[in-house]
This record gives sequence, structure tokens and C-alpha cells, in this order.
Amino acid sequence: VGADREAEEEVSFRKDGAAALDWAARYLERVGELPVLAQVEPGEIRSRLPTSPPERGEPFANVLRDLDEILLPGVTHWQSPRFFAYFSNRASEAGILAELLAATLNSVGFLWRTAPAATELEFLTLDWAAQLLGLPSGWHGHIEDTASTSTIAALAAAREANGGSFVVCSEHAHSSVDKAARLLGLELRKTPSDEMFALRPDALDLTDAAAVVATVGTTSTASVDPVEVIADACADAGVWLHADAAYAGSAWVCPELRWSQRGVERADSLVVNAHKWLFTPMDCSLLWTSRPEDLRRAFSLVPEYLRTSESVDSLSEYGPALGRRFRALKLWAVLRCYGREGLQAAIRETIRLAKLFERWVEAEPGWEVCAPRHFSLVCFRRDGSDEENEEILERVNRSGELFISHTRVGGRYVLRLAIGSDRTTEADLERAWEVLRSSEAS
Amino acid sequence: VGADREAEEEVSFRKDGAAALDWAARYLERVGELPVLAQVEPGEIRSRLPTSPPERGEPFANVLRDLDEILLPGVTHWQSPRFFAYFSNRASEAGILAELLAATLNSVGFLWRTAPAATELEFLTLDWAAQLLGLPSGWHGHIEDTASTSTIAALAAAREANGGSFVVCSEHAHSSVDKAARLLGLELRKTPSDEMFALRPDALDLTDAAAVVATVGTTSTASVDPVEVIADACADAGVWLHADAAYAGSAWVCPELRWSQRGVERADSLVVNAHKWLFTPMDCSLLWTSRPEDLRRAFSLVPEYLRTSESVDSLSEYGPALGRRFRALKLWAVLRCYGREGLQAAIRETIRLAKLFERWVEAEPGWEVCAPRHFSLVCFRRDGSDEENEEILERVNRSGELFISHTRVGGRYVLRLAIGSDRTTEADLERAWEVLRSSEAS
Repeated sequence: VGADREAEEEVSFRKDGAAALDWAARYLERVGELPVLAQVEPGEIRSRLPTSPPERGEPFANVLRDLDEILLPGVTHWQSPRFFAYFSNRASEAGILAELLAATLNSVGFLWRTAPAATELEFLTLDWAAQLLGLPSGWHGHIEDTASTSTIAALAAAREANGGSFVVCSEHAHSSVDKAARLLGLELRKTPSDEMFALRPDALDLTDAAAVVATVGTTSTASVDPVEVIADACADAGVWLHADAAYAGSAWVCPELRWSQRGVERADSLVVNAHKWLFTPMDCSLLWTSRPEDLRRAFSLVPEYLRTSESVDSLSEYGPALGRRFRALKLWAVLRCYGREGLQAAIRETIRLAKLFERWVEAEPGWEVCAPRHFSLVCFRRDGSDEENEEILERVNRSGELFISHTRVGGRYVLRLAIGSDRTTEADLERAWEVLRSSEAS
Repeated sequence: VGADREAEEEVSFRKDGAAALDWAARYLERVGELPVLAQVEPGEIRSRLPTSPPERGEPFANVLRDLDEILLPGVTHWQSPRFFAYFSNRASEAGILAELLAATLNSVGFLWRTAPAATELEFLTLDWAAQLLGLPSGWHGHIEDTASTSTIAALAAAREANGGSFVVCSEHAHSSVDKAARLLGLELRKTPSDEMFALRPDALDLTDAAAVVATVGTTSTASVDPVEVIADACADAGVWLHADAAYAGSAWVCPELRWSQRGVERADSLVVNAHKWLFTPMDCSLLWTSRPEDLRRAFSLVPEYLRTSESVDSLSEYGPALGRRFRALKLWAVLRCYGREGLQAAIRETIRLAKLFERWVEAEPGWEVCAPRHFSLVCFRRDGSDEENEEILERVNRSGELFISHTRVGGRYVLRLAIGSDRTTEADLERAWEVLRSSEAS
């Protein structure tokens, strides 16, 4: 009976798998034609689904059918080439297929023994990525789910290593720094920024600080903190320096963008999200440290039931979670299928397009660029009130033609257009700009 | 040029996808014949891989080839029907394919707007799961990556709600409780347990406590803390009660196992890992709370760039991470493709096999069962020294025929055999028992 059931399941895995793969392929082919922002009201998707689970099992085909008919209208299409909100990203084909393989293996890497390949590939791919980004050799790297967790891990290590009662960052640092400090019971002190939206190091007072978080590529404007000067101050005060390059760090694969890396080589820890601008599916946050022993001190804990005869590092000793998926597989697949040249070409193209958009805005009467463009993010607005700009945003997003987000800088409501997908073409950008311009007229 | 490149990528996604799917299908067909514990030395896998990433992109076929030839010998096969270590689990076919779909969509659910379907399906599937497990209606549920993170979230909410300077748990609570308390700056006080390895509530002193963690199904022996009595003590002292049923909670899909749920309905928070015993791929830790407002108070933080016009809950307001994958899709697929009856049948079969193994051990001279068997975990040992039992463990694991782990209870080294895969057959168990018995003789 067992063998029959297995044979049946195997047939069905091939059949259902082919249907799922076909769905995925068709989705990627047509995603550019779907409304980018889901055009549904809160509660609408849930109301179309049964309130209770089925008593008896259903065929997988029903899942695919309901994904298509019920869920899809509620999907905001991050894979659309006209998704320009937040930090736009793209899950590449290689990364997607690697996730299928990782789920198939279902490795749970809490000890080396439970997942030797996953453990060693994670350390190796982080070394590869460090080489690609031009980081110092010898740093210890591993993968967390998100930058939020990477920052928690880094600040926990800082607290363990240095003591100190507070964390310093600029007013433009990401909210995950607030969240991490709150979790760790550390006070957060935000320093003012300069006219370039960068941290003003002259305002730093590090007496009794646990850590400084310097940001390379802030969320609002992709501004760059003066990491070198901050590193000096941290060295003087004996304070941990955590560099948050979650978005912009991927740019360092291009040597011409490494001006923004200056000083990072002196950081105690660094986070770069491969799922943001390195064509890797969520979740893949890369955390490096030059002080791995401090991360271990903050997180290592080996109870009897996890003791083994090997004396090797386990990934779970460097962060909050014990169990971990085989996330390195997708990063490895991406790095191999793109190669250094492919990554450089893809990132340069997103930046070329951002520059182009910046020029269009600058050249258009009634519109202005609101912050220096360093990478692939353009901050801009229409002349007029905050409310008028907010209306433009809601209108273009409701059109389904593109999806952008906003921020507030210098007291003003500002639109953000970020390019992170290597599927975005000049034609996509032209269409977006046309919708934006026609939106102001209505 | 853009369109050509896209067309090429699409062809290749279908072709590479078919190859990846075929690899996955063949893997699942043959995993039972591969050595369960990877038979490699630390560093061996890494030494076979290039130390640097490629300059130019390679075909995806190379990734598949190296997965097969280089990585596979370094994989410990969690999907093997003779993986009996820790808490054995299985990623079901439906769950695996749902991960392919989730990676394809690459939804990032930090706000409702960015992923309406993922957000609403997560709340809905947690309601479905609550119904299946017989939990109180109206609890707020969401998904974290692991029980470690769920416990961090629960204890952060407890600290926010109640204050208090320490957390109480039994000496048999999971190490993730230690880790969470350390991260949150809370002291951990471990109370002694009784002869059934359950927390002794008479030893509880809750003055100034932040929370008690009660475990249903401890890691060492799957023992069950007296949650009802603990709930009384927590209610009297106004202390948060977190129930850790990461492993055993899935058993509640069977009404006859709900004796172990008594008192859990009075918990403030509860974690059950669907990736442990509910046939869902890593990572899928279900966290319910009857006090969602306290979780929100601990974690909600909405900076300007995340403000939207909708007034709806976002998943990121209930836990440490901001970005989140579309994890609900795999849970939904599993619940639908198994149905209540399928889940009950699968869980009952793992328990039937565990009972069978327990009887074999009891009937065999020179072997003993070392702890009451409540679920699908059997703790046992060979008469003799700790060293002899450790040798048996190392020998059977080195054989590749099965993989078991150990613990220490009552001062003695004890072997653990856990059944969590619905692919494990009686024949698999017979083979395991034969290897174990013949191992003692050598």
C-alpha cells in the first residue's frame, strides 16, 4: 500500500509540477500586462475564499485554479517591469528555480551536520559576493531573512561586545533600526542630516553609545552617510559601526559605484539585501562581520540535544533563528547564471534608466527632482501642494499602469521611482512617464 | 533587443524549469536510497567548489549538474523516510510546488498594499489551521520563519504588556527560549521538572515575572507541561503565558490527542511549527495570540515612506521582520491537498509507527524506553554506558541507513527516534531497528 501511494504521489508530483511550472512561465510572460498595484479593497480576497478548510483533500489543480481566479487579482506584481515603488526588485529565473530545488531538499541547517552542503555553500557564496562587491577579504558572512533581522543581529553583537545604552543613526535611517533598538532595549538617538540627507558627523556624541548605524542608500532618497568620518568617530570612541547598505550595496559590483563604499571596509558589520537589487528572490539578506566572535557570543547556545562530534561552526550561532532554509542555493544560482559581467550589465542598465528618467523630469516644466540621484532611485514631485502630489500618486497607482511610492523630505511630500528589475525597459519607463504627466492634467 | 532577451529568457525558464522539476521528481523518488546523514567531513564540499564566482554567466544546467555531483553528497536528507533525528518532518509535494509559485510571484508583504492576497491568505490560513487544531476562535494568527522568532515576538509583547524582568520555563524548554530572553535582556529562570519531565508548577514564583513559557512536547522527550495549572498561576500573577507547541501542536488535528491541549486555550500566545509535523516545507512557524494589540504595541512602526491610504493591518506590525515572503501559499496548498482527513490519517500513521517502535524496544532484552511516549517520538537506550550508546548513535548514523539524534535525561545519554514523515513506512522502521540492534552487537 505504501509503495502504491508513493508511486501515485510521484506521478502526481510530475504532473502537478508541470502544471505549476507552466503557470509560473505564463505568469512571467504576462506579468507586464497585469495591473501593477492590486486593484482590490481590503477584505475582498478573503471574502471570496471559504471560511473553513476542506474536510477531504483536493487535487493540486484546485490550488492552481484558485490562485489564478481568486488570488491573482489581489497580487501586487513585484515582478512587473513597471513596479517602481519602495526598492523595486526582481526574482530572476535562476533564483526562482533554485527555490524549487531548496524546497525539494527541505534542508534545515541549524547544525553543520544537519546540512553540510547548505552550511558550506552559505559561507562560500557570501565570500563570492564579498569578492564581487569589493569587500575586504576574510569577513564572515551569512544569510538572514531580512535587513531587519540582520540589524538585530549586528546590534545584539554590538551590545554584547561594547555594552553601551544607545544606538545612533541619522534621521533618514530605516525604521528597522528603530525596531531593532526597541527589541534590544537600547535607546535610539537620531542625529540631524545635512542638505544632502546624509548624517552630520559633527553632531555625533558617542559617549556610552553601543553602536552607530551608517546608511549607504537611505530608503527615502538613497542618500549616503559619510562612512569614513563616522568610522573615525567610532574608532575613537570604541563603538561598533554597522553599515546598512541593504539597497545600495549591490551597486558595488560596479567599480564606478564604489565611491559609496568608502569607509565601509572599517565597519564591524554590513548588511546588503540580495533580494533587493541582486535579482535574488525574497528572502536573502547578506550580513557580513569583521567580528564573528562577537556575533557568536551574542547568539551561540548549544544545548545537549544539539551537541555533535564535529567541531565546526553552525549558521545558527550567528543570528536569532535556529532553523534555517537552504537560502544559499538561490544566491549561488544567481551569481553563477549572471556572473560578474551579467550583474554589472543589469545594474548599469537600471541606473541608465534612472538617469534617463531624472533627465525627463528635469526637462519638464512644472516638475522637479527633489534629491540627488546616486543610484537607481529618483525622488521627484510636481509643482503644487502635497495633496496634489498625493493625488497624482494615488491616481497613477489606481491606473494599474505603474506602481510608485512616496516619502517626505525637507517637509515636503515627494514621489519615488526606483528601478530594480532587469526586465524594465526604456519603453516601460516611457509609458510610466506618460501616465505620470497625463495624470497631472486631469 | 529587450523583447528578444525576454523571449530567450522565457524559453529558457521553461526548459531549465523542466530540468529542475525532473531533478526534483527524481530526487524524491530516490531519496530513500541515499545515505540519510551526509557522509562527508567538514570543509569537504566547500573544497570542491571554486573559490571565486564566475566572470561570465553560465547556463542553469551547470547549477543542476553541480548540485548533483558536488553538493548532493553533502546533503543530509531530511526528506528521507529514515530521517528520525531531532523532529523529523517532510516537505509535501503540494508544499514544494507552492514554494515555486511563491518565488515566482516574489510578493514582499510588508504592507497590505504590497501584497493584499498574501496578507489576507496568511490571516485566513491561520484561521483554518486554528479550526483544524481546535483552538479558540478569534485568535490572531500569522507566520514567522521559526519558533525562535515566534518566541522572540511573544516575549517582546509580554515585556511590553506586563513589564517584568524575567521569563520562567522548565529545564526542558527549548534553547530558543534562552536565546530569546538573552536578546530581549530578560533573565531566564528555569524551574525543576517532575519525573515525567514536566514543569513543576509548585515551584513557580511569578513575582515580577514577564512571562512563563509552557511547553507541549519538549525537544528532549516530548513531555507536556501542565498548562492548565500554569495558566492559573499566570492569571493570578497577571503574567503572560506563552505556549510552545512547536512540535506537538500539529497533533491536535486529531481529537484524541487534544488532552495535551488542555489549558492552551488560556494562553496569551502559542507557537506551532507547520514545518515540523504538518508536511509544510521550511519555514512556516505559526504564531497565534489572544492579545494582538500587545504584539502591535511591541512591533508596529510606520514611517512616512510606509504610510498608505488604507487603514488595514499589515503583517509586519506583529513581528521583528519588515519584509515577508508569501509563506501562506504553501500552508494553504498543504491544508487543501491533505484536508482534515488527510492530515489526521498522516499524523495517526506516524504515531502508530512510533508506538510500534516503542513496543519493539520494550520487548527486546538489553534495550529500554527512557521516557513516556506521548506522540511520535521514542526515547530509548541500550543497557550500558553513555559512551556505548553514543557509539551506537555514531555507528548507525555513519551507516547512512538511518539518522537519529540524542539527548540527556535523568543524567543519562538517551537516543531519540522521531517520526514526522508521512513517507515513512513500517518497512523503513524495521530496517532502522535492524541496523540499531546489529550495531550493538559489533
